[in-house]
Amino acid sequence: MKLRLLSLIVALWSVAHVYGAQAPKYIFYFIGDGMGMAQVLSAQVYNRTVLGNTDPILMMQFPVASQVTTHSASSPVTDSAAAGTALATGHKTDNGMLGVTPDTVAVTSIAKELFDRGYGVALVTSVPPDDATPGAFYAHVPDRGMYYEVGKQAAESGYDFIAGSNLRGTKDKDGNPNDLIDSFRDNGVDIAYGIEGLDGIRSRRVLLLNPEEITLGQINFTIDSVPGAMSLPDMTEAAISHLQKNGRDRFFMMVEGGNIDYGGHANDGGTIVKEVLNFNQALRHAYDFYLAHPDETLIVVTADHETGGMGLGNNNVGYDLRLGYMDYQKISKDRFADMCRAMRKSRRIYEWEDMKEILTDKLGFWSHVPVTDEQTAQLEEEFNRCFKGDMASDHHTLYNSFNTFTEKVYRVIDGVTGIGFTTNGHSGGLVPLYAIGVGAECFSSLNDNTSIPAKIRGLMK
Amino acid sequence: MKLRLLSLIVALWSVAHVYGAQAPKYIFYFIGDGMGMAQVLSAQVYNRTVLGNTDPILMMQFPVASQVTTHSASSPVTDSAAAGTALATGHKTDNGMLGVTPDTVAVTSIAKELFDRGYGVALVTSVPPDDATPGAFYAHVPDRGMYYEVGKQAAESGYDFIAGSNLRGTKDKDGNPNDLIDSFRDNGVDIAYGIEGLDGIRSRRVLLLNPEEITLGQINFTIDSVPGAMSLPDMTEAAISHLQKNGRDRFFMMVEGGNIDYGGHANDGGTIVKEVLNFNQALRHAYDFYLAHPDETLIVVTADHETGGMGLGNNNVGYDLRLGYMDYQKISKDRFADMCRAMRKSRRIYEWEDMKEILTDKLGFWSHVPVTDEQTAQLEEEFNRCFKGDMASDHHTLYNSFNTFTEKVYRVIDGVTGIGFTTNGHSGGLVPLYAIGVGAECFSSLNDNTSIPAKIRGLMK
Repeated sequence: MKLRLLSLIVALWSVAHVYGAQAPKYIFYFIGDGMGMAQVLSAQVYNRTVLGNTDPILMMQFPVASQVTTHSASSPVTDSAAAGTALATGHKTDNGMLGVTPDTVAVTSIAKELFDRGYGVALVTSVPPDDATPGAFYAHVPDRGMYYEVGKQAAESGYDFIAGSNLRGTKDKDGNPNDLIDSFRDNGVDIAYGIEGLDGIRSRRVLLLNPEEITLGQINFTIDSVPGAMSLPDMTEAAISHLQKNGRDRFFMMVEGGNIDYGGHANDGGTIVKEVLNFNQALRHAYDFYLAHPDETLIVVTADHETGGMGLGNNNVGYDLRLGYMDYQKISKDRFADMCRAMRKSRRIYEWEDMKEILTDKLGFWSHVPVTDEQTAQLEEEFNRCFKGDMASDHHTLYNSFNTFTEKVYRVIDGVTGIGFTTNGHSGGLVPLYAIGVGAECFSSLNDNTSIPAKIRGLMK
Repeated sequence: MKLRLLSLIVALWSVAHVYGAQAPKYIFYFIGDGMGMAQVLSAQVYNRTVLGNTDPILMMQFPVASQVTTHSASSPVTDSAAAGTALATGHKTDNGMLGVTPDTVAVTSIAKELFDRGYGVALVTSVPPDDATPGAFYAHVPDRGMYYEVGKQAAESGYDFIAGSNLRGTKDKDGNPNDLIDSFRDNGVDIAYGIEGLDGIRSRRVLLLNPEEITLGQINFTIDSVPGAMSLPDMTEAAISHLQKNGRDRFFMMVEGGNIDYGGHANDGGTIVKEVLNFNQALRHAYDFYLAHPDETLIVVTADHETGGMGLGNNNVGYDLRLGYMDYQKISKDRFADMCRAMRKSRRIYEWEDMKEILTDKLGFWSHVPVTDEQTAQLEEEFNRCFKGDMASDHHTLYNSFNTFTEKVYRVIDGVTGIGFTTNGHSGGLVPLYAIGVGAECFSSLNDNTSIPAKIRGLMK
């Protein structure tokens, strides 16, 4: 009876506390692009069974672990533009459209609304900052492919901090530079290349891009460990620092883990796991901030859609998963395919023995990852067809095309880890939502993607 | 300011209400066997896009929509015995073991604990009541395959109402009847065959089984509409009535949707969707009860594991799902395979034209479901190989084996609907949890399967 009375007092106090509290002063909105339920759980299975951690990964420890539906106005399977629009503005739109309704009426993002109320705004992504997900927080275009227009609207947004790999919209259709970079400068934005480039920045507004020598359209996969490339955790930390340097006592920050989606399109389980863990590392910076401001901070982690139809089971391994084999994978499927293309184009003639060395070195084949004699024979045959025959036929996916040899190589990995995929595109599956802090409990029920910004708006009232 | 004060008063009242409330008097525990996130969402996509309903399916309307991890003590991918044990007792065990820890120590289920505290207990399933999931609520055996022993323990459980398709354990290894049915009678259990069979029952204890002429090991798939077969909603309603007839003012009821798992093993999307909707219909009976006793009832809906690695997207349909085609499917893949086997065994010689008629009649091929000329040619070729050649090679799955023709037929359906699968077995994916009623909010965070009974125990204190 005494315990019940105590519980009652504690509960009354905490409710009074929440209801008496201000709207959240600091809002972190983490979006794992293509991060479905299986993507998160694969990282957690790796965390538990390979890293041996008892606690789940940080996002899964949050007091709310919920579900989100993602369909767009035009389809049960959304693209990132319609999904970004829903998550940013609370409005459904057709696939391909950004920051507008299906009839092209502009709709306002919560980032912009909060900015207009005096909040600092930072947008951080591991892909181009004029791509669909970050774009949904400031742009209004009928077609997500209008990168120049999207970039212009980023320049004019007034936001404190925008960071990503590089801008897509800096060249016209003939490949000549346009005035997009100048637009940023004209709007008072300092441009930093690489985290170190931030040191000299004095402006309130910053555009942070990859070091200029890194030309890839993403900040590089975590698994590829490219020297000098930025990481999502570093960019997130830099964004918080910049907002604090700007003297912002209230801010909204969106952080997109854009590479998870690329890994999904490639059906590359090892890359996905490492990207989700990297995204989770970025989240740790927000969580540390929350710990310092627990009564003023809200963190919401979710995804725009699932990519790949990822399943944690296949007929090869039976009722098991063996994600430890992923540790021998030192190269993403995308970069492996690039490497194969470069090898084919080079003057040197590569033999199967050369490729065997690479497969052992980069993927642990034969030395650590079991490859049957039959698989070895198939790989050799496919190698000869792709590298010795006519131009290899490519299995095209949205963001990359892999030669058939690459496909076969990574199917061997899937076979031993137990991962499977149903598509190279997006799927219509439920995505997760994790929340902690002021108002987190309002996300406990099923969320449509449009209801997330609606609920955040509700908390601001 | 007035609004905030009002909110505060409402909140204080509702917290006082919860903390002042009794432990739940009526607990419904719904377990969709093999019902992962994709299984639920496929039913919801069908509900929204085909049936045209604005509201989500009932379970998704509950105030808590959360996530559950399902790994067993022996593997990241659980079987139904270890999963049932976790959900019933709160203890992890090895795959294959039921109601015991890995070192074979018996562990007690919440059903038994509540029964000993005066709660009525009902267990309802669409598969045999001596199978793993219901068995976990009363049995303790080192091997789930010990059906006779499991059945005996059901007879001795003292529970009010046990219902399912038929008992697995009624025959010895030579196929001769044993004393299992007598054991039930000796323990004061009346046996009813079919819902109508309940009319004459006077005993406190009932075992409800399928009408004797229906010999299949499940209550039949919803999609197959077998006349005279029981349905999960009917059995659920009957269980509530029986507990009330017994004068139970407190009870615990477990309802298993066992056929969802069979649909998953078969990789049969149309059957899965109809089974999830049927399970959701059974849930409606519990929900109606909740509406009549909102302050005394808790409903928890979850799953033991995912089956099939189901994904809502494939490369055939691109960014779309077309579940409307499922309406032309009038037969489960299991029963289609049975039909093919029967056709092969019959004296009549079936021609491709006969099969075309069946495919049009039972699956809408050509008349409603688009089948390309290439697919038609492949189907004809496979038909000739399976029906005209030597004994067809079978693609074996855990619960059924499909001839290669059946596989090809249902792959045509997957192609047009957009559904995909990564395995014929279970997967390690997250499963959903939905909850409403007394204490529902304690399930908002990530749940391990073992923490669900632990939380229910917490509510009982």
